[in-house]
Amino acid sequence: MSEGTEARQFVLAARPQGAPKPSDFRLETVPMPQPRHGEALVRVIYLSIDPYMRGRISGMKSYTKGVDPGEVMVGGCVGQVVESHAPGLARGDFVEGALGWRSHAVAPGHMLRKLDPADAPISTAVGVLGMPGMTAYFALLDVGRPRAGDTVVISAASGAVGQVVGQIARIGGCRVVGIAGGPKKCAFVRELGFDAAVDYKASKDLAADLGAVCPNGVDIYFDNVGGDVQDAVMELINLKARIIICGTISNYNRLGQPDPGPRHSRRLLANRARMEGFLVFDYLHRYPEGRARVGAWIKEGRIKYREDVVEGLERAPEALIGVLEGRNFGKQLVRVSPDPTR
Amino acid sequence: MSEGTEARQFVLAARPQGAPKPSDFRLETVPMPQPRHGEALVRVIYLSIDPYMRGRISGMKSYTKGVDPGEVMVGGCVGQVVESHAPGLARGDFVEGALGWRSHAVAPGHMLRKLDPADAPISTAVGVLGMPGMTAYFALLDVGRPRAGDTVVISAASGAVGQVVGQIARIGGCRVVGIAGGPKKCAFVRELGFDAAVDYKASKDLAADLGAVCPNGVDIYFDNVGGDVQDAVMELINLKARIIICGTISNYNRLGQPDPGPRHSRRLLANRARMEGFLVFDYLHRYPEGRARVGAWIKEGRIKYREDVVEGLERAPEALIGVLEGRNFGKQLVRVSPDPTR
Repeated sequence: MSEGTEARQFVLAARPQGAPKPSDFRLETVPMPQPRHGEALVRVIYLSIDPYMRGRISGMKSYTKGVDPGEVMVGGCVGQVVESHAPGLARGDFVEGALGWRSHAVAPGHMLRKLDPADAPISTAVGVLGMPGMTAYFALLDVGRPRAGDTVVISAASGAVGQVVGQIARIGGCRVVGIAGGPKKCAFVRELGFDAAVDYKASKDLAADLGAVCPNGVDIYFDNVGGDVQDAVMELINLKARIIICGTISNYNRLGQPDPGPRHSRRLLANRARMEGFLVFDYLHRYPEGRARVGAWIKEGRIKYREDVVEGLERAPEALIGVLEGRNFGKQLVRVSPDPTR
Repeated sequence: MSEGTEARQFVLAARPQGAPKPSDFRLETVPMPQPRHGEALVRVIYLSIDPYMRGRISGMKSYTKGVDPGEVMVGGCVGQVVESHAPGLARGDFVEGALGWRSHAVAPGHMLRKLDPADAPISTAVGVLGMPGMTAYFALLDVGRPRAGDTVVISAASGAVGQVVGQIARIGGCRVVGIAGGPKKCAFVRELGFDAAVDYKASKDLAADLGAVCPNGVDIYFDNVGGDVQDAVMELINLKARIIICGTISNYNRLGQPDPGPRHSRRLLANRARMEGFLVFDYLHRYPEGRARVGAWIKEGRIKYREDVVEGLERAPEALIGVLEGRNFGKQLVRVSPDPTR
């Protein structure tokens, strides 16, 4: 396989004001990078598109360094080794790594994780067995601490994280209610085994509609969105409820601007409830545990997943814009080059 | 000692709209209650006045039944037994119990806790060794989980709860910063050993003024007030910060009305911080532990406390109104009858 002499990559052209637009990203052609001692050249197959990327390009101080204009966009990738000078990696190996929005990338061997396509489809390494799946697993189990019989409500329920959260909660004997936008997404989460789904776009009174399918109140709210949806769920929380703050996507296009809402302190107090922020990178050391557990559930058919794949690196900006608007249906991926395992 | 044939009590006359006013309460004269088998008649010496009382008269659904118009106001009391038909209680014994806003009350023996005046001044049974002190002890240690070196910020720092929180945090090796209203209260908490105090009434930029005395950020925020003060502290929280929601007094006169503020989800997420509601009644079974610990610290001179005593049951409404406006200076008590131990 010849890779040619040029690679493509997206850099941040300008910090988006509000919702990103395609012109905030610039596709560049650069000379094919050359791996040196200890490094490998990887052809990217799948690029993962995730909501956190909006924060990285916002210029806001946050939990990690952002992307400045002129820098290559960050992102998790699955690819195939083209040339290796890294121990343990050979041409043809499939790997996962934080390679960014690129057609090809060079990385040190220790930054690449070798995948066995016999274990699971390679795309899952950035999905159900990657960052989103590990987010679901650790945030639900470690922060939420579900008990059989608990009612668990999940926003963005058909998304990369939400769909996995709900299935793990079901395995743990919980009643699971998903919040999603539109009848197709709601039907999908019901197919996954959720006990109920509420279409927030169709609802005129979300708290009432949720209340109707949460007759015993809400013990765990897995919050991927923040905003008005959070406010509605907060009206239903039980004594000792746990609210897992995993994402605030409703605000991602307005980061740093005021995000006024009702205060929830009184309700937290009266219910002795806990609202806690979660970031999966705190659990990197436990990924092997999470992958083993979720991987086993996939093999047993107890966890299913849905991917939303767009074709071609050039569509990455459009994919991110869509994710921020909730237009994706399942885990958003960009297929940057053909997947030889399929 | 003759108690006469009549007792006095305050009933709720009307649900307050906004801040309570004296006419929301009605002082009644009733026949002296008569204890039956298993009961004791108690002459009230101290009535405790606490912010939670505003919630009880609001008509809002909350963690416990409220006071309806016409019902006697609830409240913790210290008193002396006048007549006993209860096992283990004799005339002259000092007791603590939830007797309400009354000059005299009859209660079953098991609802009264006998006090030994040699252990501590009897007034402390509703203060530093009672509900407020136990709130400080369990909320700080169990929810806040302080570690030596942590920076702990406390609002309403000179109040019944706040003053104890700060001293326990100091014993645990924390840096302690109090927020209080006015120079006298700030001077008082510094005298108690707080490392710094910030006068929120004098501050033009509370987050900046707090930041100046919290050079390493805030690890624990013990929140008695909610509102704008909470918002300011939230700007300073550290990774894995704990925000203990113990009270929201800024909102008590507007319970049930909208309380808009900035949303804190994003900051909780980025800092993987935890915001958790606390109610001391969950810890009733551990009060003996808390009283033993705090009692020992008082005897060792490591915990001091300040009481604000007004004279006469007729002043109870005024005392509550003052507490809700922050006019009290230390634990608010009403002396309903003379304290024979002083």
